[in-house]
Amino acid sequence: MGLIRSWVEGANRADSPFPLNNLPCGVFSAGTDEPRCGVAIGDFVLDVAGLEEAGLLSLEGGPLLDVPFWNEVMEAGPAVWAALRARLTALLAEGAAERAAVEPFLHRQTDVTLHLPFLVSEYTDFYAGRHHAFNVGTMFRGPENALPPNWLHIPIGYNGRASSVVVSGTEIRRPWGQVKGPDETMPRFAPSARFDIELEMGAVVGQPSVHGQPVTVAEADQMIFGYVLLNDWSARDIQAWEYQPLGPFQAKATATTISPWIVMRAALEPFRCSTQPRQVPLLPHLAEPGPMLYDIALEVGLTPEGGEETIIARTNYAEMYYSAAQQLAHHTTSGCAMNVGDLLGSGTISGPVKESRGSLLELSWGGKEPIAIEGGTRTFIEDNDTLTLRGSCRGDGYTIGFGECAGKVIPALADPYAR
Amino acid sequence: MGLIRSWVEGANRADSPFPLNNLPCGVFSAGTDEPRCGVAIGDFVLDVAGLEEAGLLSLEGGPLLDVPFWNEVMEAGPAVWAALRARLTALLAEGAAERAAVEPFLHRQTDVTLHLPFLVSEYTDFYAGRHHAFNVGTMFRGPENALPPNWLHIPIGYNGRASSVVVSGTEIRRPWGQVKGPDETMPRFAPSARFDIELEMGAVVGQPSVHGQPVTVAEADQMIFGYVLLNDWSARDIQAWEYQPLGPFQAKATATTISPWIVMRAALEPFRCSTQPRQVPLLPHLAEPGPMLYDIALEVGLTPEGGEETIIARTNYAEMYYSAAQQLAHHTTSGCAMNVGDLLGSGTISGPVKESRGSLLELSWGGKEPIAIEGGTRTFIEDNDTLTLRGSCRGDGYTIGFGECAGKVIPALADPYAR
Repeated sequence: MGLIRSWVEGANRADSPFPLNNLPCGVFSAGTDEPRCGVAIGDFVLDVAGLEEAGLLSLEGGPLLDVPFWNEVMEAGPAVWAALRARLTALLAEGAAERAAVEPFLHRQTDVTLHLPFLVSEYTDFYAGRHHAFNVGTMFRGPENALPPNWLHIPIGYNGRASSVVVSGTEIRRPWGQVKGPDETMPRFAPSARFDIELEMGAVVGQPSVHGQPVTVAEADQMIFGYVLLNDWSARDIQAWEYQPLGPFQAKATATTISPWIVMRAALEPFRCSTQPRQVPLLPHLAEPGPMLYDIALEVGLTPEGGEETIIARTNYAEMYYSAAQQLAHHTTSGCAMNVGDLLGSGTISGPVKESRGSLLELSWGGKEPIAIEGGTRTFIEDNDTLTLRGSCRGDGYTIGFGECAGKVIPALADPYAR
Repeated sequence: MGLIRSWVEGANRADSPFPLNNLPCGVFSAGTDEPRCGVAIGDFVLDVAGLEEAGLLSLEGGPLLDVPFWNEVMEAGPAVWAALRARLTALLAEGAAERAAVEPFLHRQTDVTLHLPFLVSEYTDFYAGRHHAFNVGTMFRGPENALPPNWLHIPIGYNGRASSVVVSGTEIRRPWGQVKGPDETMPRFAPSARFDIELEMGAVVGQPSVHGQPVTVAEADQMIFGYVLLNDWSARDIQAWEYQPLGPFQAKATATTISPWIVMRAALEPFRCSTQPRQVPLLPHLAEPGPMLYDIALEVGLTPEGGEETIIARTNYAEMYYSAAQQLAHHTTSGCAMNVGDLLGSGTISGPVKESRGSLLELSWGGKEPIAIEGGTRTFIEDNDTLTLRGSCRGDGYTIGFGECAGKVIPALADPYAR
């Protein structure tokens, strides 16, 4: 499929992240107006809540867009998702009869503020990138024992904290936490000195599962509404001290940044690809019946305060060993109920070479090998650094983007208990 | 403080779990009516939603009880919690002038169905019982390395799954999961053969914290609305295979049962007690400024299908090494935002002797030492066993109870993917 041409300014540029093929879902506000649902198109945001109000967009079971989040549309199910895309495509396509009626609902992206696009119900983070798990395992246990014995058989994951999820652009305050170096006899309470990113994709669950009833990988794939970029900020020093025996907790609870736009699964269909070859066969309930990963080029930029950006990593979502569908299916094996608005982090997406590693922990090999950036070096994040994740799929004459997933790390509170 | 006498039948019995001193918060339905907020008193449930509707109960910012959950009352804050208790005490006390007006709002407990008392926002489970951690650590690593190095310095916890929380009486279906025995070369997908309970208390967070801002232990104590009994059902065989390196996941996601009644913190005040003596000093931000635990006698009963109940464990919440206030304060150290309706599981509450262990894993020492029950033995839970947690505080002439926290384990699905 090639570019679907639109009458909206900027939508037909080959490098626009928001052609008519994309139609990603976000929440925006213009001026002092309340946040409302919008869809990105070219250089604009289309006020779809306004379109619905005006009777230009009618969805079964609607109104579904009269709230500042996409959960009601997700809840409505795949037939409504398809109907929404079909109607918007008709309204925005080159030559559309309704152009004059729709134009007043466009806002320049430069004029709006973007908000969290959905209410996050629960947040789960996985550890399903083979290179990342191998790198981290090698640092902690050596290359022979790098992968835990279960790693090739199940997508290892842990429950994260939904209240930590923020939208791109939110400043991230460096956290305090309990840390203990290998040579220290007692732990200390201090600001994290090894604050890091994790380059991930997030899958947004759009349909629920029944408590007590596992779902197949094929069913799981159909439950996913769309994908976002996701940065799982991680305090490595806090993590190292706390994570045994029950896993990461406060190290991962400071913030998780997501891109402002959810790219619907339908927009990603042309970019489907398979997971990496299996090293050992999966048990049947976790095997993929078809390609369920996506070819999404990813990069991470680091910009010091007042300085130039350096791209510190380039990788691809196709590097994952497990797809979101496999993760979601595994998530329900125990009968765990999944709900609309659940967010699944893919796990850090590292590629096979050094420049493709999705965390500073790996890029600087535990802080031992500083990486070069414009005007300096880095092991971990320094105060006032801005970290920016970007992702895109290259189609025939068009691009699918997610918007930036960015956050500036501001200094820790001087005294976290001062009031 | 002694018994506060009430005109309601059954409320003045020394062994009633619901004297006027208690006033626990639940959600009930009578016949085909929709679920609504109620408070237990004697042998009855008082329809407080009805009282508010009728103008007999007026809360600042109200109506707060026109929804079938207690989150709006929690959100309203401690002054409203106190006003609610004061007004209900006045209405229900012996000699109350409004008795005739209130009586129509009483329903016999035997005539109602109880529902989940609040919307669970997020669920965190801790591992803060010294004896439990030592027992489990000994089984896995031997007595010398039983406690992980961080254990005496922070309340170890992990994020659980809020969607797994169900009210007492809900049947629990034995889960499937991936398991691998020590002598097996490959994992299998099978029903859990080592399904277990964890006897815990749950703290219900009634006030939020600000993202980016840790709270002190004293502040945390004041944020807690009340406590429930909590059974964190655990599939030990799934857990053993999955938990390295990121902690328990599907092993704990099948279900978490809570008691139908939230006992407000105010009702527990007379039973405050200190945590166990510190083996090493805590860092100042985690130290308790006063007693923040409660003297709550706990027991677990096991009843086979058609058989007699055996009490398999008796212990006390006072056995905890960390209080819920300490856990909540630790939970915010990274800046993690806590929300109204968050639920914190205490961790398994085991005492120092064998009969006081709060899980079958410990009671049967990993399945090696079956325990005797009426008409048989047990290592782990068998199909159609009902497990019942009970808790009570003994005051001067009165008792504070939570209602039973019970669940019957029904057989696993024959084929979890059959539709």
